[in-house]
Amino acid sequence: MKYFEDIEIGDLAEYGPLDVTAEDIKRFAAEYDPQPFHLDEEAGKATHFGGLAASGWHTAAMTMKLLIAGDGGEHVASLGSPGFDDLRWRRPVRPGDRLRVTSEAIDKKPSESRPDMGVVRFQVNTLNQDDEVVMSVITIAMIARREAA
Amino acid sequence: MKYFEDIEIGDLAEYGPLDVTAEDIKRFAAEYDPQPFHLDEEAGKATHFGGLAASGWHTAAMTMKLLIAGDGGEHVASLGSPGFDDLRWRRPVRPGDRLRVTSEAIDKKPSESRPDMGVVRFQVNTLNQDDEVVMSVITIAMIARREAA
Repeated sequence: MKYFEDIEIGDLAEYGPLDVTAEDIKRFAAEYDPQPFHLDEEAGKATHFGGLAASGWHTAAMTMKLLIAGDGGEHVASLGSPGFDDLRWRRPVRPGDRLRVTSEAIDKKPSESRPDMGVVRFQVNTLNQDDEVVMSVITIAMIARREAA
Repeated sequence: MKYFEDIEIGDLAEYGPLDVTAEDIKRFAAEYDPQPFHLDEEAGKATHFGGLAASGWHTAAMTMKLLIAGDGGEHVASLGSPGFDDLRWRRPVRPGDRLRVTSEAIDKKPSESRPDMGVVRFQVNTLNQDDEVVMSVITIAMIARREAA
């Protein structure tokens, strides 16, 4: 188990891959983001996407899926997250894309209100099979301190 | 159709409601965020959630669903979104909650690079049936200018 004290600024981790299918894209969109370019190839061709593209919120959910699946077994003593900052969709995610996620610890500080934990910020990038960043976001994680565990 | 010129700072809109079920919470979590407190009532009781709670990314997706469904028919000439800022999960979302979303235009400016559009920022809050804010986020919308349409 990895505690707050074990995390160093600059620590890198990689997650994935995850293959994206047209069926996945349409199923998520039908339930949460039913805009034509997320539901139909032909409708997508008429837009700047140039074809079917995943909802950005689907890309966010797939990124979460990869982060939760972990980076080979080392678990972090997570106490949850208050949210995230600066989410940007940089390129379309299309059927057939293979996504992976990289995460770099960019900031850490002990909690002032809760001595049992600290807060770590990670720069998270989601990339496709051509190593293009499709989404970036700064995640915020509350992580238990070792002495409190 | 509502264009960039038609949007005033302070404009308010409301969306919803949407009822949240335990089945919805578990189904989203099983696919995208399979942490025990999002999958199982008993596991949730053992945490600070005190019971089954929706994945924060599920709450984000449900918020998108309500925004897309619209506020009674007036459509905005949306050209998509580059992302969003300052997403915060403020309270758990639980089975039986009835969610609604409020949106306030807080900033607008013409695009410097694209004369056919402007960029509007909205403070979006997701509330439960007790009028508690469960999530807040600043969304960023690219909206067509009337003269370009």
